[in-house]
Amino acid sequence: MTRNQLLANIEVKQSLLCVGLDPDLKRMPQGLKGDAEGVATFCKLIIDATADHAVAYKPNFAFFEALGRHGWQALDEVAKHLSSMDVFTIADAKRGDIGNTASQYAQGILGEMGFDAITVAPYMGKDSVTPFFMEGKWAIGLGLTSNAGAEDFQMQTMADGRRLHELVLDKYDEWGSPNQLMVVVGATRTEALAKVRARLPEHIFLVPGVGAQGGTVQDVMSAGAFKDQRGVGLLINASRSILYASSGLDFAAAAAKEASSLHASMRQYWPA
Amino acid sequence: MTRNQLLANIEVKQSLLCVGLDPDLKRMPQGLKGDAEGVATFCKLIIDATADHAVAYKPNFAFFEALGRHGWQALDEVAKHLSSMDVFTIADAKRGDIGNTASQYAQGILGEMGFDAITVAPYMGKDSVTPFFMEGKWAIGLGLTSNAGAEDFQMQTMADGRRLHELVLDKYDEWGSPNQLMVVVGATRTEALAKVRARLPEHIFLVPGVGAQGGTVQDVMSAGAFKDQRGVGLLINASRSILYASSGLDFAAAAAKEASSLHASMRQYWPA
Repeated sequence: MTRNQLLANIEVKQSLLCVGLDPDLKRMPQGLKGDAEGVATFCKLIIDATADHAVAYKPNFAFFEALGRHGWQALDEVAKHLSSMDVFTIADAKRGDIGNTASQYAQGILGEMGFDAITVAPYMGKDSVTPFFMEGKWAIGLGLTSNAGAEDFQMQTMADGRRLHELVLDKYDEWGSPNQLMVVVGATRTEALAKVRARLPEHIFLVPGVGAQGGTVQDVMSAGAFKDQRGVGLLINASRSILYASSGLDFAAAAAKEASSLHASMRQYWPA
Repeated sequence: MTRNQLLANIEVKQSLLCVGLDPDLKRMPQGLKGDAEGVATFCKLIIDATADHAVAYKPNFAFFEALGRHGWQALDEVAKHLSSMDVFTIADAKRGDIGNTASQYAQGILGEMGFDAITVAPYMGKDSVTPFFMEGKWAIGLGLTSNAGAEDFQMQTMADGRRLHELVLDKYDEWGSPNQLMVVVGATRTEALAKVRARLPEHIFLVPGVGAQGGTVQDVMSAGAFKDQRGVGLLINASRSILYASSGLDFAAAAAKEASSLHASMRQYWPA
């Protein structure tokens, strides 16, 4: 999906909602089988229940890989289900390897499985990011995350005064245009989000941390929007607050309600 | 596998050889099917042909994921084949995600698939590394890599004068004992390897970059060994030079010959 298509979808729906698919066997709602098949069913029911409210879906590969080879079959089924819909699909795989190896990941995940985008880690540098720039596809580079460990490296200061994540953002800007690269920026630090937006005015940000992990839709939209606010410039992810809105047989309806509520917040603060 | 078991295996075999399994469909030797099934067969034949010379095997997940769900079946078959042997098994997956998500990767790859170790990326900090410290299992953190992109971040200088990779190494030292954490250090920079050894005297290093990517066994052993040299303290990886030693029907014999030659170099420089 191109930038124009994605931003048009966002404007039409007045939604920035990305639904994160982190299907944890320990938290499977009532009525579903506790195995890979149950996981695939769970994800597909969540997708269908939230499709009116979301513009993007983000399967978290770890939760599928935890189930071994059957997990990959479930992931494949979920990817196929998503590919029939007009939504942006993100492989949350945080891959990071060089050259030929990165190309293999790109071929498997963006090619074979058909995802629009993949999250990538920057530590190995340029040759671990640029192989994901395929026609019509996206790399989503880790920028500033909202976990405690972000202090260990991302927030550390370089000799030239920049924080490490600022150096990373500047390199992303050098390597990838806003038509092929997005950046992950956590939602629990809204003042930091505003600074990242000032640094990268044109790139779309993937913002996890709304919902169960904290951070309000209003704060994120106000700190992270594009200057002209058209298409706003964000994908705001919610995972657990939607997936596990109910542990009962009404889990799909409860997920729809939670997605609808996030969507309503986005509409409420949508630029005129 | 524990540190003592691994170092004992190394001493008995007088080998540091880790065989990297990067099965590229475009380079499959004659006589094998060009699909996931062929890939599994190829890997198993390479493993059996080199088992006398190697102490470790390292499937590169990207090359399996490139084949979609069938690739994961192949990887699973290879993992099962390895688990029946007395070798150290490394999932070269370079995962890097936080907390609960990291635990899912650990459960899938170290638990379900049974690998001894997994390569991990440090950008997200402590909570992306420590979840892999499971009983009898290992995290292998990226330290200093030998690709061009290592200059982008790893070699950059921090405000306190350390290079970023030195800060990362110091944090690894703080987080993980030499019984649960190894470090990836590229072989093309032997003076850098010696510096890393001075910084982390007790941790075992996984050293890619010997063979097709350059770097000699003698240089690496001399720069990277433990001070007392017992067990030497290195796993030296060779992938393409072994896998693709011949593209003909004699590929397994050619792989054995190449592994044997690397093994002979190791024995030649083995400490008395």
